[in-house]
Amino acid sequence: MSAVARTPEPPYWAVIFTSRRDERPGDGYGETAEHLLQLAAAQPGFLGVEEARDDLGITVSYWADEASIAAWKAEADHRAAQRAGRDHWYESFGVRIARVERAYRFDRTEGPQ
Amino acid sequence: MSAVARTPEPPYWAVIFTSRRDERPGDGYGETAEHLLQLAAAQPGFLGVEEARDDLGITVSYWADEASIAAWKAEADHRAAQRAGRDHWYESFGVRIARVERAYRFDRTEGPQ
Repeated sequence: MSAVARTPEPPYWAVIFTSRRDERPGDGYGETAEHLLQLAAAQPGFLGVEEARDDLGITVSYWADEASIAAWKAEADHRAAQRAGRDHWYESFGVRIARVERAYRFDRTEGPQ
Repeated sequence: MSAVARTPEPPYWAVIFTSRRDERPGDGYGETAEHLLQLAAAQPGFLGVEEARDDLGITVSYWADEASIAAWKAEADHRAAQRAGRDHWYESFGVRIARVERAYRFDRTEGPQ
């Protein structure tokens, strides 16, 4: 999870989820986040995910097409988490659905790709 | 910087920059990153930025159009930083240019937007 995702050649899709947490001990967030990540990775069309959190949390998941994103949005456990997110986990969040048009990657040990 | 960016209605563009740092004391990274963020915010077409870093760093900047992104990529100080990034700041990074097609935002105090 803590690596730059290896995604195929564009075009593909990105879901940029940015959030500020309303942290409360025992609110179940960590367990659910972990479960959802594993669930997302098993969905058709899933290409990869990147995550970082300090004051702000950013999760970018990559998908083959819009249909895969729609199916993931409608997945039952994910819908329950969306409700919990609005009800108590997040102070604020933004979701952006974007079509990746160009991409490049650099790896010190491999040189430019 | 640590807030969910308030961007206009789509379409607009996102540059998703994901990196793993090769951290060395006194390598000038922090100062340059701060300078570049201020410089980016002053560019034509800049709409906002979101950043988070733990093991992975993710910076998503938002732009009005592709021309603004091209101009920012070519800006002199930014080009120097791109070289330093390849030469010593980053172990690996990925850059993805994406067109934001849909977006929504939630704020506890405001309700869904």
